Amino acid sequence: MLDQLRAHIEKIVPLDDQEFELMTAFFTYKKFKKHQFLTQEGEPVTYNYFVVKGLLKLVYTDDTGKEHIVAFAMEDWWETDFPAFYQQTKATMSLLAVEDTEVLCISLQDYKKLCAALPKIEHFFLEKAYMGFIAAQQRIISTMTTGIKERYEQLLQKYPSLIQRVPKTLLAAYLGVSRETLSRLSL
Amino acid sequence: MLDQLRAHIEKIVPLDDQEFELMTAFFTYKKFKKHQFLTQEGEPVTYNYFVVKGLLKLVYTDDTGKEHIVAFAMEDWWETDFPAFYQQTKATMSLLAVEDTEVLCISLQDYKKLCAALPKIEHFFLEKAYMGFIAAQQRIISTMTTGIKERYEQLLQKYPSLIQRVPKTLLAAYLGVSRETLSRLSL
Repeated sequence: MLDQLRAHIEKIVPLDDQEFELMTAFFTYKKFKKHQFLTQEGEPVTYNYFVVKGLLKLVYTDDTGKEHIVAFAMEDWWETDFPAFYQQTKATMSLLAVEDTEVLCISLQDYKKLCAALPKIEHFFLEKAYMGFIAAQQRIISTMTTGIKERYEQLLQKYPSLIQRVPKTLLAAYLGVSRETLSRLSL
Repeated sequence: MLDQLRAHIEKIVPLDDQEFELMTAFFTYKKFKKHQFLTQEGEPVTYNYFVVKGLLKLVYTDDTGKEHIVAFAMEDWWETDFPAFYQQTKATMSLLAVEDTEVLCISLQDYKKLCAALPKIEHFFLEKAYMGFIAAQQRIISTMTTGIKERYEQLLQKYPSLIQRVPKTLLAAYLGVSRETLSRLSL
């Protein structure tokens, strides 16, 4: 699974064997069963997670107890409660396994040590951060400008393998509509 | 105004005089009158803009011709059509001056040269990218979970000086409601 992380990073920055060796020392492997929490609202967020295998959901629960899905993450995606992780505050979101999931995790301290030891990794994370920002902005635009059916179709086109794996109830909680509304649209 | 950029960068990474000197060579100063376009939908996006003075709006126009405001930018903020800038594609959004505006601008090529010459600047942009990502994600959560009045109040609390400067019509186009709806809520 470390080879998977290496291939993922090498899509952006090349690593020689020594650099790869150095990098691996900062990551820990963990397994989570379906429904388990990786991070929990109100708790500190220890890790940023790289998904080796499986599917995660990042959930925000509003004052009425309703769950909203902020993000999904599957193979080769990074996920955590980013504000809580980077600012070392308590989580405002929870991260849970939708399927049995294997991850490689890195703490903020180790992330900083890794970037100091291997500056090109900072370039890798910068590219990832830009992509994350651009995706979030495109989701904002899509929410402002398109109906649920079009947004579903955009998602299906952009992330076909993800959408096929995500239960419809979760997809509704991601799109911000009820499960019934999705059904009425024959989605 | 270069001192303003230096102070802004030094909130995250310290620069000595030589590094500052090196950095300034990559930026160009430009002035725009109110209503002028900095970048235009369908055109290439040459620059990322640091606002020295003034106010910008990033606008997405939907198929029906309706304008949606994706972002505002005032003093010390960076703004551009980021996907078009980083991926060097045609703009899908337009960036316009809401007030007479002065900016320092950097091209993608110069941005890359600057990061190569001064790797700590990459760390600065990484921090900015994380903050941008976190803000975009919080806007998504806010849109999913809170009513217009609460979102208005959150904005007012988070960006008091911005909200007071932005005309109500533009604020409505940012919040995704009509000007009339804002009025009905006495906002």
